Amino acid sequence: MLRSLAQSLRCAGWRQLSLSHVRRVSEVPLTAEHYNVTRGDYAKVSELDLQEFTSILGSEGVITDPHDVGPYNVDWLRIVRGQSSVVLRPRTTGQVSKILSHCNQRRLAVVPQGGNTGLVGGSNPVFDEIVLSTSLMNQVISLDETAGILVCQSGCVLEQLDGMLAEKGLMMPLDLGAKGSCQIGGNVSTNAGGLRLLRYGSLRGNVLGVEAVLADGTVMDCLSTMRKDNTGYDLKQLFVGGEGTLGVITALSILTPPKPRSVNVAYMGCNDFEQVKRVYTTAKRMLGEVLSAVEFLDSHCQRVVEQYCHLPNPISPSPFYALVETSGSNDEHDKEKLNSFLEYIMDEGIIQDGTVATDLTKVKGLWEQRERIAEALLLDGVVYKYDVSLPLSVYYNLVEIIRERVKDVARCTVGYGHVGDGNLHLNVVGDTHSTDLLNLIEPFLFDWTASHKGSISAEHGLGFKKAQYIYHSKSSIAVDFMKNIKKLFDSNNILNPYKTLP
Amino acid sequence: MLRSLAQSLRCAGWRQLSLSHVRRVSEVPLTAEHYNVTRGDYAKVSELDLQEFTSILGSEGVITDPHDVGPYNVDWLRIVRGQSSVVLRPRTTGQVSKILSHCNQRRLAVVPQGGNTGLVGGSNPVFDEIVLSTSLMNQVISLDETAGILVCQSGCVLEQLDGMLAEKGLMMPLDLGAKGSCQIGGNVSTNAGGLRLLRYGSLRGNVLGVEAVLADGTVMDCLSTMRKDNTGYDLKQLFVGGEGTLGVITALSILTPPKPRSVNVAYMGCNDFEQVKRVYTTAKRMLGEVLSAVEFLDSHCQRVVEQYCHLPNPISPSPFYALVETSGSNDEHDKEKLNSFLEYIMDEGIIQDGTVATDLTKVKGLWEQRERIAEALLLDGVVYKYDVSLPLSVYYNLVEIIRERVKDVARCTVGYGHVGDGNLHLNVVGDTHSTDLLNLIEPFLFDWTASHKGSISAEHGLGFKKAQYIYHSKSSIAVDFMKNIKKLFDSNNILNPYKTLP
Repeated sequence: MLRSLAQSLRCAGWRQLSLSHVRRVSEVPLTAEHYNVTRGDYAKVSELDLQEFTSILGSEGVITDPHDVGPYNVDWLRIVRGQSSVVLRPRTTGQVSKILSHCNQRRLAVVPQGGNTGLVGGSNPVFDEIVLSTSLMNQVISLDETAGILVCQSGCVLEQLDGMLAEKGLMMPLDLGAKGSCQIGGNVSTNAGGLRLLRYGSLRGNVLGVEAVLADGTVMDCLSTMRKDNTGYDLKQLFVGGEGTLGVITALSILTPPKPRSVNVAYMGCNDFEQVKRVYTTAKRMLGEVLSAVEFLDSHCQRVVEQYCHLPNPISPSPFYALVETSGSNDEHDKEKLNSFLEYIMDEGIIQDGTVATDLTKVKGLWEQRERIAEALLLDGVVYKYDVSLPLSVYYNLVEIIRERVKDVARCTVGYGHVGDGNLHLNVVGDTHSTDLLNLIEPFLFDWTASHKGSISAEHGLGFKKAQYIYHSKSSIAVDFMKNIKKLFDSNNILNPYKTLP
Repeated sequence: MLRSLAQSLRCAGWRQLSLSHVRRVSEVPLTAEHYNVTRGDYAKVSELDLQEFTSILGSEGVITDPHDVGPYNVDWLRIVRGQSSVVLRPRTTGQVSKILSHCNQRRLAVVPQGGNTGLVGGSNPVFDEIVLSTSLMNQVISLDETAGILVCQSGCVLEQLDGMLAEKGLMMPLDLGAKGSCQIGGNVSTNAGGLRLLRYGSLRGNVLGVEAVLADGTVMDCLSTMRKDNTGYDLKQLFVGGEGTLGVITALSILTPPKPRSVNVAYMGCNDFEQVKRVYTTAKRMLGEVLSAVEFLDSHCQRVVEQYCHLPNPISPSPFYALVETSGSNDEHDKEKLNSFLEYIMDEGIIQDGTVATDLTKVKGLWEQRERIAEALLLDGVVYKYDVSLPLSVYYNLVEIIRERVKDVARCTVGYGHVGDGNLHLNVVGDTHSTDLLNLIEPFLFDWTASHKGSISAEHGLGFKKAQYIYHSKSSIAVDFMKNIKKLFDSNNILNPYKTLP
């Protein structure tokens, strides 16, 4: 079992580390029992259903061995665990259509799953839903190098797409820690944000077209490859961020910007969060169009990354660290801009220490300080993950307030994230699963966020774990309309039930 | 009447010109008669209705004098004309809610109208729909200068917002010819594209939140001010580009990028469209992150601009002209990049002649060559306007094909537009309204565009004039879902009937 855990971690795109702290699959509490939810009125998979799936996919597309099904049941954070007994692995849109048509007729619930790197339990079964994995739908359909428009199946892995594009001088318009195994279909289904949203904007603005299969097997072809298309309502936007509840994304087209020829990173230490904010506002003003990321982490994050990932602190210890990246087409110009920026913030005393990387290896090295926080925390204990948007005026206050609330029960409370987007990752680490700890955080954290007009899910989505808190960020009128749209697209509610909507 | 025409032209944001060629309101054929459409089963506005509206808005908010109502009935192109007898001018969301609630109960049809600068007859009544003008809803609600997030009412004029932001070192993320009178609510309702989409991306990615009033008066508050918010389906995207058929946008929040400190424009002559394409691909490669626009016009456009706007050709006559703009934070760097680019394309013989503007007045002067085409054509005759997305490989072919088809009937056929976005504006000018001419163009042009996987409306929307052609760009399955969504939001179909959906 440890071997499959290691596989699962690797397959989740993060480096393989000592697994002594990572819980075994069997230790993860069953979601249904832990959260006290009730199974919907769905059929159970029968022998005849399996025969039908085998006739559609061949035997290699139908996984039923419990050992092999295991990893599909558990999320990367090892907090939610379902009890599915079947994983289906189609290769074509036609096969997805046949599968869903059958499931809809039979009232079999289905959970679409990409790289299974989500953080809100959105891609795992809650009960015995059939897992529809897009892993084998990994073909590039076309690439228009002049216009920079890629069309591909939804199961393509983000990092592989980015590598393929790099050879053509292009890149994917998003980047995130899980890039090594997350799939572009999952990215689009969750409207993933990530590390370079500041520069390339929301995925909603970069996705040009989507092909999705609806619950009854209908293929919805909104696979435009045009940068502009104002013909009727933009239905594809419902699938972007729809978390697989309205349809299964099978293919998509996406803008791919030119790959920058020059990338530089500055990693800096600040005395307090006010200084981090000043780093951001100054970078925005002085670096202009070459600014591509402004990230931060607190000293607690730095400590776990050093402890578990054995990455030494590249600068002297500070309460806060800011990472600023530039990406541009002219190395000399970019370095000149970055140097002016660094001189200014040092002269003004906005940072206490700092280092700059201008070659690729060192750039990657500095990024690791930020990118490996998630895996380091996972090795530290049971992680309660929160992902909120907040106005910068109160951004880090939430970390301090939660840290104080849970100080007697939690191992640690950390804050890191995308300052440039107003997106805070707040993580609380406990020794074991603890309802007491959870009750100290929720719903307080959601109430506090809502009272400051933030969003309770900036980029992770609602999935299973946050669905019931939707009213903290959306009005009941809006949620009612969402429910009606869900009915329109999936009248039998077979697609990813228990997720997104309460 | 000529006076109100002049007012109307001015109020449409375009400079006032000799009106001798512009048709009078009374000359514009009534839409219903011209297009042979049938009025829906709506009530007619009664004296009691007017009393109700007056009680909501006061008498200054209710316009019934036919002379004053006139301009609201006719579109800017003077092709569609309705017969509304009432214009309502609310100032608050609450007033819009009360108006729509009353209209919905009474089955009174309503057409929302912003700056009335649309080009597809989307904002004018077709029959006697009540005009709901957002012109008085022009208040800025808040501006977060640090995050660059503006919240305002929907009736704010684009150019005024941009001017207000400029004082804070910010700008609106879109720009278009009609900026002097188009309203941001109309921009969002039509998902306007414009001149700087290449740099700042689609409006869908820049609009953070929308407040809309539904047909029954329900206020849908999706007015998030966070850059990231993944909580449930992104309902606001239905209002973006919904052309006022799903709700009336009353307020919105939008990202405002830093205003560039340096803007340069190169205006160049090319021998053929292949050279224009090479200008674009070279600019993309060599100007990278400072590239903010790549536009083109053909010699026919240059001729009408010279003739009607008295703008001399800034370079020697060429079959095609390309305009390339850079916007950046460092003037020296930007000029260096632009000079390298210009040297390269001149050495390679990609352009035959060119001029560069680096100060604001000259930059504006060169832009006028491109921005004033629409008004010049309007003075040349009756304009049949098309706005398609096409792959660059066949982009200008369509102009040549249509020019050949209509050569015996039309005054001229011109092409211009946003090469960088694959967005072609194809305009055919006739002496008078001519069904023969129209039949030579439609549906041929839509068929041809669809057969090349283009979009029949890149940025103008479908409005009244193109609604029946939606199937050229969207599948019948998709259109059926759109119709169901329309029913969900507006069960009595009172909001902007006859528009967008066939």
